[in-house]
Amino acid sequence: MTDQPPKANNTPPARLHLGAAYYPEHWPAERWPEDVRLMQEAGFTVVRMAEFAWSTLEPTASEFNFDWLDRAITMFADAGMVSVLGTPTAAPPAWLIQQHPDILPFDEKGRQVQFGNRTHFCVNSLEFHAAVQRIVTAMGEHFGPNRHVIGWQVDNEYSRVCYCDRCQRRFQEYLQEKFESLDALNERWSTRYWSQTYTDWAQIPLPIGLHNPGLRLAFKQFVTESYRRYQKLQLDALRPHLPPGVWVTHNFMNWFDAFDHYALTEDLDLASWDWYVGTGHLDYLAAGAAHDLVRGFKQKNFWLIETQPNHVNWRPVNNTLNKGEGRVMAWHAVAHGAEAVLYWQWRSALGGQEQYHGTLIDPSGQPRPFYSEVQRLGREFAKVSHLLAGATTDARVAILNDYNSRWSIQAQPHHQDFDYVAHLVHYYKPLAALNIPVDIISADVQDLSRYRLVFAPALMLINQRRAEVLTEYVEYGGRLVLTARTGMKDDDNALWPMRQPGLLAELAGVEVEEYFALDEPVPVKGNWFEGYSHQWAELLNLTDKLGAAIAHYGPANGWLDDQLAITVRSHKSGLVYYVGTYLDEAAQYALLERFTQTVKLSRPRITAPQGVEIRTLVNPDKTEIWLAINHQRTGKIVESPWPVLEHLSGKTFEGKFKLAPYGVAVLTRPD
Amino acid sequence: MTDQPPKANNTPPARLHLGAAYYPEHWPAERWPEDVRLMQEAGFTVVRMAEFAWSTLEPTASEFNFDWLDRAITMFADAGMVSVLGTPTAAPPAWLIQQHPDILPFDEKGRQVQFGNRTHFCVNSLEFHAAVQRIVTAMGEHFGPNRHVIGWQVDNEYSRVCYCDRCQRRFQEYLQEKFESLDALNERWSTRYWSQTYTDWAQIPLPIGLHNPGLRLAFKQFVTESYRRYQKLQLDALRPHLPPGVWVTHNFMNWFDAFDHYALTEDLDLASWDWYVGTGHLDYLAAGAAHDLVRGFKQKNFWLIETQPNHVNWRPVNNTLNKGEGRVMAWHAVAHGAEAVLYWQWRSALGGQEQYHGTLIDPSGQPRPFYSEVQRLGREFAKVSHLLAGATTDARVAILNDYNSRWSIQAQPHHQDFDYVAHLVHYYKPLAALNIPVDIISADVQDLSRYRLVFAPALMLINQRRAEVLTEYVEYGGRLVLTARTGMKDDDNALWPMRQPGLLAELAGVEVEEYFALDEPVPVKGNWFEGYSHQWAELLNLTDKLGAAIAHYGPANGWLDDQLAITVRSHKSGLVYYVGTYLDEAAQYALLERFTQTVKLSRPRITAPQGVEIRTLVNPDKTEIWLAINHQRTGKIVESPWPVLEHLSGKTFEGKFKLAPYGVAVLTRPD
Amino acid sequence: MTDQPPKANNTPPARLHLGAAYYPEHWPAERWPEDVRLMQEAGFTVVRMAEFAWSTLEPTASEFNFDWLDRAITMFADAGMVSVLGTPTAAPPAWLIQQHPDILPFDEKGRQVQFGNRTHFCVNSLEFHAAVQRIVTAMGEHFGPNRHVIGWQVDNEYSRVCYCDRCQRRFQEYLQEKFESLDALNERWSTRYWSQTYTDWAQIPLPIGLHNPGLRLAFKQFVTESYRRYQKLQLDALRPHLPPGVWVTHNFMNWFDAFDHYALTEDLDLASWDWYVGTGHLDYLAAGAAHDLVRGFKQKNFWLIETQPNHVNWRPVNNTLNKGEGRVMAWHAVAHGAEAVLYWQWRSALGGQEQYHGTLIDPSGQPRPFYSEVQRLGREFAKVSHLLAGATTDARVAILNDYNSRWSIQAQPHHQDFDYVAHLVHYYKPLAALNIPVDIISADVQDLSRYRLVFAPALMLINQRRAEVLTEYVEYGGRLVLTARTGMKDDDNALWPMRQPGLLAELAGVEVEEYFALDEPVPVKGNWFEGYSHQWAELLNLTDKLGAAIAHYGPANGWLDDQLAITVRSHKSGLVYYVGTYLDEAAQYALLERFTQTVKLSRPRITAPQGVEIRTLVNPDKTEIWLAINHQRTGKIVESPWPVLEHLSGKTFEGKFKLAPYGVAVLTRPD
Repeated sequence: MTDQPPKANNTPPARLHLGAAYYPEHWPAERWPEDVRLMQEAGFTVVRMAEFAWSTLEPTASEFNFDWLDRAITMFADAGMVSVLGTPTAAPPAWLIQQHPDILPFDEKGRQVQFGNRTHFCVNSLEFHAAVQRIVTAMGEHFGPNRHVIGWQVDNEYSRVCYCDRCQRRFQEYLQEKFESLDALNERWSTRYWSQTYTDWAQIPLPIGLHNPGLRLAFKQFVTESYRRYQKLQLDALRPHLPPGVWVTHNFMNWFDAFDHYALTEDLDLASWDWYVGTGHLDYLAAGAAHDLVRGFKQKNFWLIETQPNHVNWRPVNNTLNKGEGRVMAWHAVAHGAEAVLYWQWRSALGGQEQYHGTLIDPSGQPRPFYSEVQRLGREFAKVSHLLAGATTDARVAILNDYNSRWSIQAQPHHQDFDYVAHLVHYYKPLAALNIPVDIISADVQDLSRYRLVFAPALMLINQRRAEVLTEYVEYGGRLVLTARTGMKDDDNALWPMRQPGLLAELAGVEVEEYFALDEPVPVKGNWFEGYSHQWAELLNLTDKLGAAIAHYGPANGWLDDQLAITVRSHKSGLVYYVGTYLDEAAQYALLERFTQTVKLSRPRITAPQGVEIRTLVNPDKTEIWLAINHQRTGKIVESPWPVLEHLSGKTFEGKFKLAPYGVAVLTRPD
Repeated sequence: MTDQPPKANNTPPARLHLGAAYYPEHWPAERWPEDVRLMQEAGFTVVRMAEFAWSTLEPTASEFNFDWLDRAITMFADAGMVSVLGTPTAAPPAWLIQQHPDILPFDEKGRQVQFGNRTHFCVNSLEFHAAVQRIVTAMGEHFGPNRHVIGWQVDNEYSRVCYCDRCQRRFQEYLQEKFESLDALNERWSTRYWSQTYTDWAQIPLPIGLHNPGLRLAFKQFVTESYRRYQKLQLDALRPHLPPGVWVTHNFMNWFDAFDHYALTEDLDLASWDWYVGTGHLDYLAAGAAHDLVRGFKQKNFWLIETQPNHVNWRPVNNTLNKGEGRVMAWHAVAHGAEAVLYWQWRSALGGQEQYHGTLIDPSGQPRPFYSEVQRLGREFAKVSHLLAGATTDARVAILNDYNSRWSIQAQPHHQDFDYVAHLVHYYKPLAALNIPVDIISADVQDLSRYRLVFAPALMLINQRRAEVLTEYVEYGGRLVLTARTGMKDDDNALWPMRQPGLLAELAGVEVEEYFALDEPVPVKGNWFEGYSHQWAELLNLTDKLGAAIAHYGPANGWLDDQLAITVRSHKSGLVYYVGTYLDEAAQYALLERFTQTVKLSRPRITAPQGVEIRTLVNPDKTEIWLAINHQRTGKIVESPWPVLEHLSGKTFEGKFKLAPYGVAVLTRPD
Repeated sequence: MTDQPPKANNTPPARLHLGAAYYPEHWPAERWPEDVRLMQEAGFTVVRMAEFAWSTLEPTASEFNFDWLDRAITMFADAGMVSVLGTPTAAPPAWLIQQHPDILPFDEKGRQVQFGNRTHFCVNSLEFHAAVQRIVTAMGEHFGPNRHVIGWQVDNEYSRVCYCDRCQRRFQEYLQEKFESLDALNERWSTRYWSQTYTDWAQIPLPIGLHNPGLRLAFKQFVTESYRRYQKLQLDALRPHLPPGVWVTHNFMNWFDAFDHYALTEDLDLASWDWYVGTGHLDYLAAGAAHDLVRGFKQKNFWLIETQPNHVNWRPVNNTLNKGEGRVMAWHAVAHGAEAVLYWQWRSALGGQEQYHGTLIDPSGQPRPFYSEVQRLGREFAKVSHLLAGATTDARVAILNDYNSRWSIQAQPHHQDFDYVAHLVHYYKPLAALNIPVDIISADVQDLSRYRLVFAPALMLINQRRAEVLTEYVEYGGRLVLTARTGMKDDDNALWPMRQPGLLAELAGVEVEEYFALDEPVPVKGNWFEGYSHQWAELLNLTDKLGAAIAHYGPANGWLDDQLAITVRSHKSGLVYYVGTYLDEAAQYALLERFTQTVKLSRPRITAPQGVEIRTLVNPDKTEIWLAINHQRTGKIVESPWPVLEHLSGKTFEGKFKLAPYGVAVLTRPD
């Protein structure tokens, strides 16, 4: 607890922060000024600290050592940089584990996780909760009021799933609360199947390997709840000490699937994430989906709180980005809603697991080659920060994302190659290639009215509420695209006693008579394309007269031959498509281009050849800004229907102009 | 115990039952009549029930709930269908596991198996035995006398191998009984090797991973004994309550290798099995071997008690059979001795692990497309059931199958690709392609005199008794084919101190001077073929003057060059071939065609091109029936030397006639 | 303890022993004479016995049974063969394990290893130490004085790494001794990283999977220490009983990496090793490196104490060597310093895990085909034994080998294909192909002055001492080749706060500005070659004026384009090359040929085409002997500038003469 009144918040964050993770505890204080100088020369505005410093902050239980961090924050502030602090709970110190060994979690194979890496805690351990509360409260009291600390990150990359006895008991309690009676649970999970009927809550196991689908889905939800409770503990310890405007976030890992990210971000002020290419190079279409996913967590701009300074150290092959590619990654993030770009990390500790990770400063303390690329970025961010402050994406297309459907499919893919995320991205990519902005949002969003076109890829779990929202959307003129595997199951992962798409069948005017995992591609011929279905095919029947065929299967296994593959059903101005096939890329591009044409989605009037991305942002002044990003290693021609001012160079272009290899342009129409 | 005298048996089973597994406990009783109606319309004559219903039949210890099953049996009887009941012991209920947690078995990695799937029992647990005895006795007493129950299946797909401490003690006791003294065991297992000498029975481990070959083989035999004892427990509980003619079976999984199937089927009345293609499509030549294997378990016809309604759910890719292929699978089974075809399952439970498995009725309660194919089968079975009742295969070629040899090779393959079953099937396929019927029988069969040609593929374990049977067979004019890896070891998996084929060397007139695992194919040139040896080659020497060369190796590794690869040794009218090479497919076909020509095996006089199977069955009236099955997706011409009546169509053909794609004909010569 | 004075040593060992491992305990004594006869006919001079005979030698605790082995030694002595005995400690008997079950070690997955194979002991178990001391002392007392026992092997193929609680405590003690204070350990390991700071020695875990690099490296050193202490125990028990001249060795497995072989061989009299091709065929260039590695352990000739009699049994494919190839393997070993060639094994036990392993005598007791090849070898060895006695390799090129660097890279390869040994061999092979003899020696050798050219491939760990030795070497005119990844870390696996090559940077006149794991090959153009860099590339800067460029990168990822790839820096007559690239094979051959030309290394004046190896040995009389070995399956022409005497045939050749396929010539210049 602090007696001091909260200080006035620092000025509203400049759009476009640039910075890095920095660990002052690894270096003698004499070195710090040189690091500050190099950061200033790189144009840094923010530094992230402390998220693994527990053993330095609290060397033994309840003895806190905060001075060094006070000094670091002040030093950066003096140099014009704000600080973001992490709670260090992802790295419980050795003394704590020695005191409470059963904080250590158990993995799926029944082995207790060792001390010596990270996330070696059971998220449901009460001893751990107590220690977390102590350190987070102490940090909140001490650093919360510091006006140079503009935001907090709680814990780091939630990821561990624990299978200890305590978690089993908590899971049983969770189920008791959820189902109230064992009869209800037995009924919802069809436990008569294989004689799994439970007569005592204590009989219910944790799901290791193959298990009842109801149990498996419930366990995923339980893990979500466990992390949410754990996160809440930290938020409750921190927030009383934070001045208004100081935000709290957690750094997520894009498509990571251990929990429902919508549930966890609900309690946070800001979404942030850690973006690493790993092996290979930037696939900007897929990466755009990841950024848009994170933007969708809270349906607003986000922080890219960790990203790759040229290479990582945890992949089988840790190759380096091409020269210029790292800068393009940063601009790509900004173009999709990042308000900050922070590299992980500034300089490697001399020891520890990540000695080989990319950094800006090498072990000798001198800049690496990549540093010069960041310097350029620093100059550029400074130039356009005022322009891009608060600028947002105005998307009229949405893709619905649902963790429950994903978990259900992942646990029972039926075809090993059917991946929920890959299937979703299969719908995203053609839109992104056409430079059409897309929101990826929760399938539980209640109001879709701002969208002209909504995709619900593989929305396997349908309930009454979802059906109502989608129906209302269509009835008010929306265009809805349902796809393979939609509407098969209910909230407990049980089959609906209906043909797919279940509660959406009437809306779609179609029923799935049979689904097929494909061992070989099946030809599909549509009105606007000819191609093949891979992995999956559904045999469709129109169920009313307002439905029409869009594509048919060709000769295949006898069952599918000449059957319907894609249908459409009209509802006054609304339309519902049902895509029963998993098309090859070329056919998918043709199909989606057609979908977008029929709804007359605006595309940027500034145009460029394939491989150049054009994103439109709108800032609070309603100024339209176009970011043109050349993702190719050769120069490309951009064309504008009107004269444009390019803010990085300060030049004005008219008609055609050239973007250099990995070139970036920030354009507005001169007043 | 029941006081009632056994009722008179129901009428002798009609040949060709059609049915499915049905789980009335999953559905409200109001739904049952609709299922009965749909089954009747599909021509069903039998339903299999209860094999996973333990928690419904005995909701808590010793409280039985049998009414629902009584009602179901009666309902089916009223609709003209008989019932087969399963004992539900493969799915011990939660209350039993909670009461006796150490019923749960341990896997090879030392982890105790969780509750939540199937077969979570240690086959040697006395607590489990007691519970099994209770439920099976109760079911026997109650349902045994019911005349609509024509047969029983005990347990379901024996498969679990347990590695718990109790099993270790039982294994030690088993060895004590088998060897009587440790000196004998030490001697037979050569335990001086690596200082493994045992001085106390309690020192002997269970074999996990690499181990002494004697120990490994003994453990396989111990598992067989454990299951046999467990099965006996159920048989003893059931049989006192069964009227004469009611059979007991177990559903085996063709080439599954955890135990000796000959030992287990010895105690059963009937062999039955579960036949799933899984991924891909029917390979009728390989599938025929599996059917013939099961027919050989008891050397009589069998039940196909589970088969695939178009697709399964447990493979990486669960593709669907082609339209028509499922019907062909059923006829193929019948042609190899199946007296019944039952689909698994009728309709999926709404929950549980197998939601995606193929069924006849979909989750909505309506027929799936595959249902129509079964309806056709129902009509066809009804037409020819009288004709095919009791019809059998009259094979004059046998292939000897030996679990001990298989286990020995599998544990020490020496070449990773050498698979005992694949090698056996390598001999089966050319015969099947020639439409020559084959019996696959135990290598311990005592009388081979009915066969003109006997193959003993990779019969690694030879003992005095086997040598005598084979010698007698040859001396009375039989033709015997020995192959690579024959005769190397004794009953305890020890090397014979002789050159291969050991006890058969004199009979074969040959010795193996050296064996070779091959990294590259070696050319082989024979009298009737030229080809290559893969994986394996043995360097042969003739040891007497009655031997002759059939094939030689070409230039290879220097050791094999120009050496003997295949030999023959004559014994009056008998012959013994020794095939030291593992030929490529084309050469193998040529070799086997020649083998069959020399013994003048009758082949069906009705002929057809490759890919069309012609099977001859003989019914109790001595009527010859030919089943012609087109396994291709294009029409094929069949040719008969005399006019034939086709029973499915009722038409008579003369000379050539066409079989449709996936077409089936049931033919006899008109009287 | 023995009261007898040590006997006079037998005559100095004849160069070129031939023999096999023999297990008399597996066979009735009546069989022994036949084995002796066959060994004599094969020209055997030595037999190796007893290394797995613990349960026969000590059937129960402290009851010894040595008679049988006495008799065997005598029998062989009578037939002119000496004996080498193994201590049987790699196979602790069942009674010992039953008495002290916690002798059984734990694997990395936390499972206790079962009895039933080999090496089932924790190297740090005190109960095991006591039992080892007892049996080894007893054997030493009893057999040590026997003049027919010319040498001993302690244990067999050290390999097991244990992860039990006792090992953890010993590791903690080891660290305490090494670092003295936790502050020092924390500092050296950078434990502030991820809050790993240790406040109690008992908190330190064993490294399972990913872990702190300092901890991982220390654990490898601890395993080395553990085995060294265990070996010392045996040496101390044995040596008091051994007459002068009787040596003690251990049979190592060439590049095996569980411990530092230099540390372990330091305490032995002789290095020996077990050489198995396994699958495939002899790669003489790579195999030569393995022999030279073992010769480098003690920088003198060694014994090939086990080798492959045509095939093994423990590979997925256990193919056989070509006819003649086994003989070439033996000569190849001799040419690289082997003073003895012993096959494993003479004849397989009838049971046990290695029934399928190659032998000289087959299960029937008759010679296998390979026996005749060994007979030839026996005759040949006898002919030239006097000539080759004590002959050594006089290498002027050294490659430095370092276990610490290897462990460091292996734990963090950064590119999955970067293998320390493969990289070292990449430098060895071109030299071997040029018939230039090479010493592979410890990177901690203090005096390099005998070498004209020294390679330090990937010498990642550099300390002051190493830097001084290399500097002195160069300053006195040596040529030093540093390669990729050199000089990055210190003795505790921490990064030096310097640019690579760290302490060698000034010597090399170069710094590595950045390293790159490559996802695609990068072109490299040098003065004498054009090629590609694979896996790895370092961007180099010259740091003084005495440096010069040797090769540059071509167009690549933007960072490397046109940058320096290889440099050279002159020091009066000395030179230091820095090779920052990992070249393709052709380029590497060109580069290394050039390196060797500049130092005018003598190459044999007897020449032959590629694939024929020419090795020069010098015997104690200073006679030069050339071994010409044709590793090809076709004949090859050898050319000599002067007449030569070929000792195997007794013929003299002049100018050109032909080596048969797999032919061998032992040549000297006639006096």
